[in-house]
Amino acid sequence: MSTPQVGIVMGSDSDWPVMRLAAEALSEFGVPFEADVVSAHRMPQEMVAYGEAAAGRGLRVIIAGAGGAAHLPGMLASLTPLPVIGVPVPLKYLDGMDSLLSIVQMPAGVPVATVAVGGARNAGLLAVRILAASDPELQARMVEFQADLKAQAHAKGARLRAEAADL
Amino acid sequence: MSTPQVGIVMGSDSDWPVMRLAAEALSEFGVPFEADVVSAHRMPQEMVAYGEAAAGRGLRVIIAGAGGAAHLPGMLASLTPLPVIGVPVPLKYLDGMDSLLSIVQMPAGVPVATVAVGGARNAGLLAVRILAASDPELQARMVEFQADLKAQAHAKGARLRAEAADL
Amino acid sequence: MSTPQVGIVMGSDSDWPVMRLAAEALSEFGVPFEADVVSAHRMPQEMVAYGEAAAGRGLRVIIAGAGGAAHLPGMLASLTPLPVIGVPVPLKYLDGMDSLLSIVQMPAGVPVATVAVGGARNAGLLAVRILAASDPELQARMVEFQADLKAQAHAKGARLRAEAADL
Amino acid sequence: MSTPQVGIVMGSDSDWPVMRLAAEALSEFGVPFEADVVSAHRMPQEMVAYGEAAAGRGLRVIIAGAGGAAHLPGMLASLTPLPVIGVPVPLKYLDGMDSLLSIVQMPAGVPVATVAVGGARNAGLLAVRILAASDPELQARMVEFQADLKAQAHAKGARLRAEAADL
Amino acid sequence: MSTPQVGIVMGSDSDWPVMRLAAEALSEFGVPFEADVVSAHRMPQEMVAYGEAAAGRGLRVIIAGAGGAAHLPGMLASLTPLPVIGVPVPLKYLDGMDSLLSIVQMPAGVPVATVAVGGARNAGLLAVRILAASDPELQARMVEFQADLKAQAHAKGARLRAEAADL
Amino acid sequence: MSTPQVGIVMGSDSDWPVMRLAAEALSEFGVPFEADVVSAHRMPQEMVAYGEAAAGRGLRVIIAGAGGAAHLPGMLASLTPLPVIGVPVPLKYLDGMDSLLSIVQMPAGVPVATVAVGGARNAGLLAVRILAASDPELQARMVEFQADLKAQAHAKGARLRAEAADL
Amino acid sequence: MSTPQVGIVMGSDSDWPVMRLAAEALSEFGVPFEADVVSAHRMPQEMVAYGEAAAGRGLRVIIAGAGGAAHLPGMLASLTPLPVIGVPVPLKYLDGMDSLLSIVQMPAGVPVATVAVGGARNAGLLAVRILAASDPELQARMVEFQADLKAQAHAKGARLRAEAADL
Amino acid sequence: MSTPQVGIVMGSDSDWPVMRLAAEALSEFGVPFEADVVSAHRMPQEMVAYGEAAAGRGLRVIIAGAGGAAHLPGMLASLTPLPVIGVPVPLKYLDGMDSLLSIVQMPAGVPVATVAVGGARNAGLLAVRILAASDPELQARMVEFQADLKAQAHAKGARLRAEAADL
Repeated sequence: MSTPQVGIVMGSDSDWPVMRLAAEALSEFGVPFEADVVSAHRMPQEMVAYGEAAAGRGLRVIIAGAGGAAHLPGMLASLTPLPVIGVPVPLKYLDGMDSLLSIVQMPAGVPVATVAVGGARNAGLLAVRILAASDPELQARMVEFQADLKAQAHAKGARLRAEAADL
Repeated sequence: MSTPQVGIVMGSDSDWPVMRLAAEALSEFGVPFEADVVSAHRMPQEMVAYGEAAAGRGLRVIIAGAGGAAHLPGMLASLTPLPVIGVPVPLKYLDGMDSLLSIVQMPAGVPVATVAVGGARNAGLLAVRILAASDPELQARMVEFQADLKAQAHAKGARLRAEAADL
Repeated sequence: MSTPQVGIVMGSDSDWPVMRLAAEALSEFGVPFEADVVSAHRMPQEMVAYGEAAAGRGLRVIIAGAGGAAHLPGMLASLTPLPVIGVPVPLKYLDGMDSLLSIVQMPAGVPVATVAVGGARNAGLLAVRILAASDPELQARMVEFQADLKAQAHAKGARLRAEAADL
Repeated sequence: MSTPQVGIVMGSDSDWPVMRLAAEALSEFGVPFEADVVSAHRMPQEMVAYGEAAAGRGLRVIIAGAGGAAHLPGMLASLTPLPVIGVPVPLKYLDGMDSLLSIVQMPAGVPVATVAVGGARNAGLLAVRILAASDPELQARMVEFQADLKAQAHAKGARLRAEAADL
Repeated sequence: MSTPQVGIVMGSDSDWPVMRLAAEALSEFGVPFEADVVSAHRMPQEMVAYGEAAAGRGLRVIIAGAGGAAHLPGMLASLTPLPVIGVPVPLKYLDGMDSLLSIVQMPAGVPVATVAVGGARNAGLLAVRILAASDPELQARMVEFQADLKAQAHAKGARLRAEAADL
Repeated sequence: MSTPQVGIVMGSDSDWPVMRLAAEALSEFGVPFEADVVSAHRMPQEMVAYGEAAAGRGLRVIIAGAGGAAHLPGMLASLTPLPVIGVPVPLKYLDGMDSLLSIVQMPAGVPVATVAVGGARNAGLLAVRILAASDPELQARMVEFQADLKAQAHAKGARLRAEAADL
Repeated sequence: MSTPQVGIVMGSDSDWPVMRLAAEALSEFGVPFEADVVSAHRMPQEMVAYGEAAAGRGLRVIIAGAGGAAHLPGMLASLTPLPVIGVPVPLKYLDGMDSLLSIVQMPAGVPVATVAVGGARNAGLLAVRILAASDPELQARMVEFQADLKAQAHAKGARLRAEAADL
Repeated sequence: MSTPQVGIVMGSDSDWPVMRLAAEALSEFGVPFEADVVSAHRMPQEMVAYGEAAAGRGLRVIIAGAGGAAHLPGMLASLTPLPVIGVPVPLKYLDGMDSLLSIVQMPAGVPVATVAVGGARNAGLLAVRILAASDPELQARMVEFQADLKAQAHAKGARLRAEAADL
């Protein structure tokens, strides 16, 4: 794989089943990425190093997933000039509402681009859109992707009309 | 002003007192932008046209503010391959929780980069980070901006230490 | 089936298990309907076309189900003069609270008649009441339906009194 | 004023500052209405009588506003075959969330068409849409109304573009 | 069983698995009760009749369970001078928060004594306390019951201390 | 004033502006009461003594108001066989939702009769209903009170009809 | 086991599966503890005695777990000068939000150190940190523990990088 | 002032009006403290340095206040073996619920001792209790403080009884 353009990080490998959807979305668009455990609470110094080095290493977007008191996305955003996308990972209780508020309610000066609770696939797609903003070819592929979504929705509609007609 | 790179749109001019903070952030970084009323609910066809034309007109990021059943950011995201940043505008009741959920909880396939309730300044700064991902000079200015934030925080700390010492 | 009077639409066929309860209610009253996938986020132009054409095609009520950032009911309401009924479909997290707020909190000018989380059966019954407001025969059937509800409740009471007496 | 087609009711005259917006919307469309205090909790028998008589008296839609444990809309819906529109009136605490849930979460069989917290104007407009479903002339006026909304939004956009250009 | 002193009512027999805990508590104290389905939404006139007749029939307390837009306890409280105890029954979504707010947030003038979500056993015990306020013998039994609760808690403590010692 | 039948207690005199509405309701019905500061958190031993002595001193109902982590009503309920009515007092933040949940969510065995956020007047009226369950004369006064509420609502309706006719 | 330094208490042995995580954390650090059932609602006098005696018996920290209207931590804090740590135990409904607010929202004067919903392990670790504030050797072990957490996170990262490389 | 034992830190001097209550509580007990601005988001490296150095510099407790996506308390807890007390500072919207969840919902391994929304005075008192756990003289002063609270509550009760007697 060539130099990663997107870094996908999370506080623990227990977040991977959610976060791999971001990786898969990037793979579909051929965007090289890396994935790693970078824990704000268990390895804060390494997290700082990761954030400080990210832009210099050639990363162009960071995707960070976290649950509960979800500090990773916001901390990385304070350490890098790159756009940081935050994925609220739902934990056992509270349905991810704690994760969402901990990620999205950042103070003025340090933005995190937050997606839906458990919305790691959209995090990947948002990273693609961000990269595509300066890459016409990638943008064209996003346009195609959107056309595919539409075609799939049309197909679902055809099946549903048939099923409803039998009611 | 040169060709706008960022489109700032909102459903009504009553959102402008919140949304102008996004415009001011872009101005600070010298990023050309446009601002307009594009209402998902009052001018849906024009909204569609706006979304469809945005990338072709040279826009590279869209910032959309909306309150309550806040449909504008998500609808624009479905109409453009550009990254769309959503600003939950708080209304008279519910403290923006309705706006936040209506914007952030997008289905897989169509991401909106959501910022804090009333967080329009961060929307502007996020747009700068997105543009800076392919513009080293702009990224350098973001790094400077972050250094300024730090300097201001240091100054506040000095004043606070003095005040606390008098307690 | 004769010309549909009610259009039942949803963003994906995954909403059909919830939304078919609306269809069944309409069937019980002999109200002709159509059901289709019309996705605000995956086929926005077709959604616009659906909304614009609805009244002209003879539809008299639209029922739209959606989950999460549930934009479909509100967008259709902005595109048609017909009454639009919104059904908040609960997703995996947040128990439909996001869907409810995204549908019900519409701005002044564009109403959506919102029913309970997952309340598709009531959406169908509300459509019947709306049609019945200008159709005495249909209204009489609604009165009968309400009498049946009462009779069923009485029967349940009889069984419960017996069971409680054994306590 | 001719025979009222819409009954606007509320539990107390303290709800009138919110609910008169429904009356004003109906007035704009020339729809005759009546307004009254019908309290579920203070005059339950009269409420029952109101609900039972509504359809027979020629009413075609009921709009009911209520706050807190807001029982009026749901009780009326159980007493009439007419469509009932519920307006959650916000009280001093909880921002109308209690009113909203008490109105919208009706059990299967008895729907209430719920609008936004404090959304009495939309309740009036929804009543117009319901009446217009069988009244082409009224529906044409609703189409005009929607065109007016669009024109106003355009005008706001023009002013905003000018203001933003000065930034 | 002698003349019931407590009426236990609910909107549907589907609430009985929750509400029978109230009945069991009353049985433990030898308080005669009746249980019935009285639906505010499906049999409003019978509900009114039930409320109006309750005191005259010799009932001294009413326990009403309801879920969602839970109107039964509040409506009965408006129809009787008796104390009414409301039990918020949790439905499939929202964990009973809708039921709780619909029951507890009654307007000034018409109180409902609300217990915890699903707290039917406590509703029964509260009814006993109310009756015991004018019945020294029953109050003595409540004091005994509280002593039993304490003894059980002591026994649990003994077991727990043993288990923890093995850690 | 004769021997108090109702004890009104609260954690601090800052709750008195809310809680005096309970006292006023009792005064209207001629029910003798006492009011005092009994703080679960600042004078726990005295609180225990208050709860243990209440029934023996002749009190028949306790009304306890508390805000935030509102422990007073539940603690008193554990110390007395009397019915305890809890009033959630709203504090500066959270609109009384913390107070409500801290009071109403009592474990099985120890009920608290909870009224609305800030609903001290209803706490007084509920105490009257409880006393009236064994006092026909007091119950007759409650019936009269309810008739008065109805008359007031009628009067409000008359004024509203006049005002609406002028619209 | 030597004299306990930490008392772990809970309202019922049903809380033990959650609370034993606190005990295990203390065991890992060799801190002697005791565990017991001390119910605020079922044995209030014993709870008072426990709180009053705690400091004199040599306890230096109390950990109290409770669910719903969770009064135990706050009541103990009012009875002892020791630091009290509260663990919100989640019950069947509301995901522990009621437990959290009942514990954390204490009035000024009586603090409870609250941890996450179900966060008993962190309660144990917080007790260790408190004891370690005056025990350099224990603090050194906490530093080691934190280094172990970091090492584990590193190992997880290595595995994740391998897994992601295969995507 | 002698070597500070408690560090009071906050992300911005705008938190000082809330956080100075912690300082005042410490002053009342004669506990030396320092106060400073240490922003997780604006000066992350300095925050890391502050956390790493805290124990070595002689601090024994850290009190950290933060609002919104409140990362400061949790980040410091990951950098120090000291007990960290978190104060959720309420911002303009959401009443501090975002601050509370961002602080309290820490993952296993890294506890934060969370107090009430805006509860900085209790943070100070909790720090005193923690220090007093190994300082009998300070603990004796805490016992006195609790006695004073009780005396004040008694005085309030006396005034309230007088006022209520006049009702």
